[in-house]
Amino acid sequence: MKILVAEEAGFCFGVKRALKLINEYQRQGKKIQTIGPLIHNIPVLNDLASRGVNYASSLAGIDKEKTLCISTHGLSRDSELRLRRKGIATLDATCPLVKKGQKIIERLGKEGSRVVLVGDKDHPEIIAARSYAAAVTVINSLAEARALPRGREMHVVAQTTLNTEFFKDVIAVLMDKTEKLHVFNTICQATLERQQAVKKLAPKVDALIVIGSKISSNTKKLFQIARERNRNVMQIETCADLQKRRALAKLKKFRTIGISAGASTSPQELDNVKNFLRKL
Amino acid sequence: MKILVAEEAGFCFGVKRALKLINEYQRQGKKIQTIGPLIHNIPVLNDLASRGVNYASSLAGIDKEKTLCISTHGLSRDSELRLRRKGIATLDATCPLVKKGQKIIERLGKEGSRVVLVGDKDHPEIIAARSYAAAVTVINSLAEARALPRGREMHVVAQTTLNTEFFKDVIAVLMDKTEKLHVFNTICQATLERQQAVKKLAPKVDALIVIGSKISSNTKKLFQIARERNRNVMQIETCADLQKRRALAKLKKFRTIGISAGASTSPQELDNVKNFLRKL
Repeated sequence: MKILVAEEAGFCFGVKRALKLINEYQRQGKKIQTIGPLIHNIPVLNDLASRGVNYASSLAGIDKEKTLCISTHGLSRDSELRLRRKGIATLDATCPLVKKGQKIIERLGKEGSRVVLVGDKDHPEIIAARSYAAAVTVINSLAEARALPRGREMHVVAQTTLNTEFFKDVIAVLMDKTEKLHVFNTICQATLERQQAVKKLAPKVDALIVIGSKISSNTKKLFQIARERNRNVMQIETCADLQKRRALAKLKKFRTIGISAGASTSPQELDNVKNFLRKL
Repeated sequence: MKILVAEEAGFCFGVKRALKLINEYQRQGKKIQTIGPLIHNIPVLNDLASRGVNYASSLAGIDKEKTLCISTHGLSRDSELRLRRKGIATLDATCPLVKKGQKIIERLGKEGSRVVLVGDKDHPEIIAARSYAAAVTVINSLAEARALPRGREMHVVAQTTLNTEFFKDVIAVLMDKTEKLHVFNTICQATLERQQAVKKLAPKVDALIVIGSKISSNTKKLFQIARERNRNVMQIETCADLQKRRALAKLKKFRTIGISAGASTSPQELDNVKNFLRKL
């Protein structure tokens, strides 16, 4: 069996940075908790929990004795203000590229501009980002884009993990809605590179495995992009998912298997899968 | 034979306005010449010439005793300044929507912005529009869009008669080139409506006739859009083109014929074609 790993896969810059910050704080003897999951990968969250880094689901549940780490997806402006008022020590692990989107929205809000934010309204990144201006409309489908009212001017910002092709389709729809369309392409380079790598790899292999948790937005997009180009795509969280009898029987049929992994999937997990497949 | 005329076809607002201005001036006893053809339709230009309205190809060839009419496509800023310095009386028939594009480019130029102008670099509208800022790059293909260097910010303006689908494809390419893309959708409503009407009509008829001169940019686009949706499309300038033996033999085969016409095609010409087909 031939194993091909996508040219870009696994931990992105923002995830590496967040884990490094937590490690540094722990080395300094500080106790850490996060507000919401730090990243959307269960095995990494389990590993953090085993090292004492748990997460609180809301501000009400935080332990005031610990340093509160803001997740890579960011925190709403209101929540950040409340933490500051309560005098709670924080460690900001918001991905700098997510922060950049927040700053763009904040500036547009101050200018009184109408902002259209393209992304999943229930995702923590979007919940946080939309809080940075008063008039933000969140859309996540072409139908929602088509339903927007016409306007003199429109400013568009994207979730960092959006599918670039989908974002382009949304922009094509919005071009009919206004004469002045300002497009802030805030899709991050890591997302773009992982998507391009999957696009390239998917047609070359008999089957493709995408490693990442179901709750990971960017992993979901990698899976969708792969599925458009290859019939045999499976998403797994850990190597253990491959060891199940049905998965094994399926895998043994293929000559070439490709591997991709979301931005919050650890290099260890990627290695585990690669080594497991090599031994098949 | 059934004849279906596109919902929107023929003279647009800018062309009607230009002809009205000339008529008013002539009623006042003023002698008029235009700089370059007033519009891109030979029969209308011939009609104007028969009423004494000729055109000079360059500023060198103008008759200083006459009022100089600027064509619907506009005039470069330098040429306008030269006319003013020479004290030549002018009548500005620049289409207000073309003028709007010039003003946008002028403002962007003053701000020191990088402008990408999408259109035909040899068309008088683009020659005039690009003169309104120092740093304007004209592109007219996806290959040229792909070849543009990356930049921090990009401002895009369109020729008023551009194919809207093509403009959207160009924007999709440019979204990969910059994080801040400002799209000025300066394609005029008349162009958009005529294109949409042809798109709707072309699949419903056995053949489609597009009336307009070969030099007309917007007519050319209507022809291309029709050709993508119907095999039997012909572009004619006047009804006389249909009276030729080969064209006639071809036409008689069809049960349903559609008619569309460029923005500079007169209602008389459209009626001529309609009446001619009715009698077949």
